[in-house]
Amino acid sequence: MHEVPVEVRYAETDAQGVVHHSNYIVWFELARTGLCSMSGHHYAEVEALGFYLVVTRTETRYLKGARYGDTVLVTCRIERLSSRGIRFVYEVKKEDETLATGATEHVWVDRTSGRPCRTPEVLRQPFSRLAGLS
Amino acid sequence: MHEVPVEVRYAETDAQGVVHHSNYIVWFELARTGLCSMSGHHYAEVEALGFYLVVTRTETRYLKGARYGDTVLVTCRIERLSSRGIRFVYEVKKEDETLATGATEHVWVDRTSGRPCRTPEVLRQPFSRLAGLS
Amino acid sequence: MHEVPVEVRYAETDAQGVVHHSNYIVWFELARTGLCSMSGHHYAEVEALGFYLVVTRTETRYLKGARYGDTVLVTCRIERLSSRGIRFVYEVKKEDETLATGATEHVWVDRTSGRPCRTPEVLRQPFSRLAGLS
Amino acid sequence: MHEVPVEVRYAETDAQGVVHHSNYIVWFELARTGLCSMSGHHYAEVEALGFYLVVTRTETRYLKGARYGDTVLVTCRIERLSSRGIRFVYEVKKEDETLATGATEHVWVDRTSGRPCRTPEVLRQPFSRLAGLS
Repeated sequence: MHEVPVEVRYAETDAQGVVHHSNYIVWFELARTGLCSMSGHHYAEVEALGFYLVVTRTETRYLKGARYGDTVLVTCRIERLSSRGIRFVYEVKKEDETLATGATEHVWVDRTSGRPCRTPEVLRQPFSRLAGLS
Repeated sequence: MHEVPVEVRYAETDAQGVVHHSNYIVWFELARTGLCSMSGHHYAEVEALGFYLVVTRTETRYLKGARYGDTVLVTCRIERLSSRGIRFVYEVKKEDETLATGATEHVWVDRTSGRPCRTPEVLRQPFSRLAGLS
Repeated sequence: MHEVPVEVRYAETDAQGVVHHSNYIVWFELARTGLCSMSGHHYAEVEALGFYLVVTRTETRYLKGARYGDTVLVTCRIERLSSRGIRFVYEVKKEDETLATGATEHVWVDRTSGRPCRTPEVLRQPFSRLAGLS
Repeated sequence: MHEVPVEVRYAETDAQGVVHHSNYIVWFELARTGLCSMSGHHYAEVEALGFYLVVTRTETRYLKGARYGDTVLVTCRIERLSSRGIRFVYEVKKEDETLATGATEHVWVDRTSGRPCRTPEVLRQPFSRLAGLS
């Protein structure tokens, strides 16, 4: 599990006065980046090694809007790890209140071939550890 | 059913060379705006009447990436209409190929009270018609 | 000169109820893409040839806000063309009213070396024509 | 002067592999929010008091691109303070290297009338202090 604080940006608000729903997907990515870097390999480095972790699915439930002036906490953890992909789950909280929850699913893709591939060797053990599987 | 063409913006691409997944949620909204305006009331007008159509859930499946230079077609239709909310479904296509599919769920909220409410009277018949229910 | 219509997206509005100022930069890019494609080469194709047209400066004046429900017209023309760069100027109008004006400056960069370079051979004559210089 | 660290978001990158130039405007706003809150009044509170600080001009020079994996430092200071407006200037640095510089100009607007107005009374002394004028 990894948690990052996110300060709401004015540009993220919309005419309803709350954060536009598309931005939660971007916040999830910030928390996911933080979690993945706990593997010892920042995702930027993973791409440099020749792999993409491609998004195949996102889902989000919105319970309450975040507002400019808020700093929210976004948590990310691995819910499911397979030989070729990952499912992450997320929660966005403001103090003790849950504003949104979500999930994203991903598959590994070889940058050269553009085809799905197995989890890069160097990440298998660290990601299993992050997933609490070993 | 309503369909809108969307020209990919360079700003929507990411370092993988394809459109960042968060933008599909924004494209869905463009198609939804177009569909809703077929009710005879642009959504901007609905808000002016004192109602918000608040997003409670989004889900998206990504099959293939859109690229700068592409113009995609985004379709939106009402899948389910209740007395207090709507579920829309979407498809993003490039020529004959489906790039993504998705859904969003919404509830009506009274702007003054900030509380969920029934579908605004003026929209009931038009939205039923849009949903193919009458 | 090239003109594109842009329908305001809800996601582009902010808590002031108008389009957030950062989005005008993205709209400029849409009009620039349209102008550049009148050279006979879409900018996506130019990048595929091995060149980037890198932004070195942007400036924007904001006169009046655009709102959700508006469709604005964005015009782009080349103000200055040099052997290694271009200055484009823009205007955003709603009917007869100017909402914003702006400019962007760019230099050509060779993708392989990452260094500034001369205007790609294939674009010299078309861009001169677009600039009204020949 | 106020400085905020900004972690580059994957969604902010574009197909050139660097941060899309429109995002620097959003980063400027983050640093401006931080500076303004040093007045003792968060900008969200200022809006609640009935005022908007409306953007009338932005300008940005781009020297070098930021990349995913980078955390940049964005500084903001008041360059000019008048009875009705403010000019802020910005710098984006990665370690000792300047990636971009910029400026934004703003006027105060009364939310009720929608018309330009004088600096809200409660902010005059704090903003003068922030500007180093007193």
